[in-house]
Amino acid sequence: MPSEFELIARYFNRPVAPGLLGVGDDCALFPVPAGHHVATSTDLLVEGRHFYPDVDPQALGHKSLAVNLSDLAAMGARPLGCVLGLAMPRADDAWLAPFSQGWHALGDAWQCPLVGGDTTGSKLGLTISVTVFGAVRPGQALRRDAARPGDDIWVSGELGAADVAYRLLDGQLPADPQRLAATRRALEWPQPRVGLGLALAGLAHAAIDISDGLLQDLGHILAASRAGAELRYADLPVAASLDGLDEAVRRRAVLGGGDVYELCFTAAASDRARVQQAALRADVRVTHVGSVRAEPGVVVRDAAGRAMADLPAGFDHFPTAAQP
Amino acid sequence: MPSEFELIARYFNRPVAPGLLGVGDDCALFPVPAGHHVATSTDLLVEGRHFYPDVDPQALGHKSLAVNLSDLAAMGARPLGCVLGLAMPRADDAWLAPFSQGWHALGDAWQCPLVGGDTTGSKLGLTISVTVFGAVRPGQALRRDAARPGDDIWVSGELGAADVAYRLLDGQLPADPQRLAATRRALEWPQPRVGLGLALAGLAHAAIDISDGLLQDLGHILAASRAGAELRYADLPVAASLDGLDEAVRRRAVLGGGDVYELCFTAAASDRARVQQAALRADVRVTHVGSVRAEPGVVVRDAAGRAMADLPAGFDHFPTAAQP
Repeated sequence: MPSEFELIARYFNRPVAPGLLGVGDDCALFPVPAGHHVATSTDLLVEGRHFYPDVDPQALGHKSLAVNLSDLAAMGARPLGCVLGLAMPRADDAWLAPFSQGWHALGDAWQCPLVGGDTTGSKLGLTISVTVFGAVRPGQALRRDAARPGDDIWVSGELGAADVAYRLLDGQLPADPQRLAATRRALEWPQPRVGLGLALAGLAHAAIDISDGLLQDLGHILAASRAGAELRYADLPVAASLDGLDEAVRRRAVLGGGDVYELCFTAAASDRARVQQAALRADVRVTHVGSVRAEPGVVVRDAAGRAMADLPAGFDHFPTAAQP
Repeated sequence: MPSEFELIARYFNRPVAPGLLGVGDDCALFPVPAGHHVATSTDLLVEGRHFYPDVDPQALGHKSLAVNLSDLAAMGARPLGCVLGLAMPRADDAWLAPFSQGWHALGDAWQCPLVGGDTTGSKLGLTISVTVFGAVRPGQALRRDAARPGDDIWVSGELGAADVAYRLLDGQLPADPQRLAATRRALEWPQPRVGLGLALAGLAHAAIDISDGLLQDLGHILAASRAGAELRYADLPVAASLDGLDEAVRRRAVLGGGDVYELCFTAAASDRARVQQAALRADVRVTHVGSVRAEPGVVVRDAAGRAMADLPAGFDHFPTAAQP
């Protein structure tokens, strides 16, 4: 029977760069570039809530790190390292091998080494905790409270596919194997926009990653910035894999669908060309979808310019909480 | 029904120092003193494994942070901040209020502000993830691999009480309310030795916090340092609350008992007086209990100088894992 320490060593102890102290001491140590602050974000992923028990472990390893790198991207921070906590019913080679492979492949792609962690048994099913660290010059960080009236609102990539895949897998939409095949990758293999965030640092004003849905996440920017917004529904970058869907389903996926991990950000209208150049450098499509205004609230206008009603509500992580 | 965001705000959004960006953005931001590296450690605490469902929430808030601050202490690092992840069956005021009180009281005591976190529902019971950040000059960090033959071995505080309390609560020892009352505080309110770690940085050689038991944790130092050790059993600082216990129970608690969060560290024999002065400054008792030697393995000698047999085995976090 391999001990906990042997399992950790087998899949997670990897050489770290000189100057770093990695897995296997009380703490990991890492340097921070002069003039930079540390940016950090943490997430918990719970079996049955954030992923299905039978999800591909390699995809889960990728996504567990991706959703955290996405938070660094939304700050314009450069990854420095990460730590991983695993509470597992069993220490299982057949699961740990592909999980660690998916994790390390993404960490290597963005030079974000795993520097520490914790592994424990749990009778409660699988829970994954991830904390990432990055470096950002404090004056260049893409804060939520930095949107200004008149700013352009931009969205990277495409919207809607992850939500449709989730609702197909969850049985909320009728079975449709072809559409599931076309949308599933967006749900299980999201690509954190780290390169775009770095290209936008010091250029864009406010940014957020779309984890809870465009309207709700844009709402966080607007609340922190004490502003409102107008969006043009027809200009939103909708995934082609949503073509032919019922309009109500499409609208909910595009405006309210979570688990997207694209960036929503604002920038001065005078910087429109510089934003496009930054996106080109990062090799990510960005779309200008609306503008920040002083009046509070979000108005979504249809192709005819009319304010749309029946917008999807936000996502609450405790939908079943009892009344207080 | 308070939303997740309202609950987080009520108990965990507190003003942070100027220059820090706290809870409520994609990432928290904090500065690191010049010449220092970041030290980080992460832990998962799982209901039914690391704590009982009916544990006092205030004690649990304290301990969740304490076990992580203890890792900073074992590196000689100064706390900079921490993040907290909570996966909870219910968002429950009656639990969050005392939990956050226990957490913040300890964080305030060591100037370790909560700068970020994640809260999620979970049908799997309560899981707590904690990540702490500290600052340490890289040349002064108390690494596990820095013990040298001839070093003194020291232990802070007292040993054994937490293990006895755990075994009484778990029914492994016959009910004994008086002894439980005398030992329970050591288990539920451990005091991280942050001040001692800071006083020892640059003075002690290797250090570790005793989370898995003295023999096992000292074994980690010795394995990393490629050395062995001799301990004098009669010199170990045993909690008075163990008086009168069966010798086998006492020995297992002192040598093998986990959840202690005292420091085991090594220092040059020529620095014995400086170590005592550092401990005085930190207001923590330290005891010289043995020495590092070149030959591998740990020998524990009884009062007559004989090598003791029947030493307790180490703790494995997957005791029930299936054979591979």
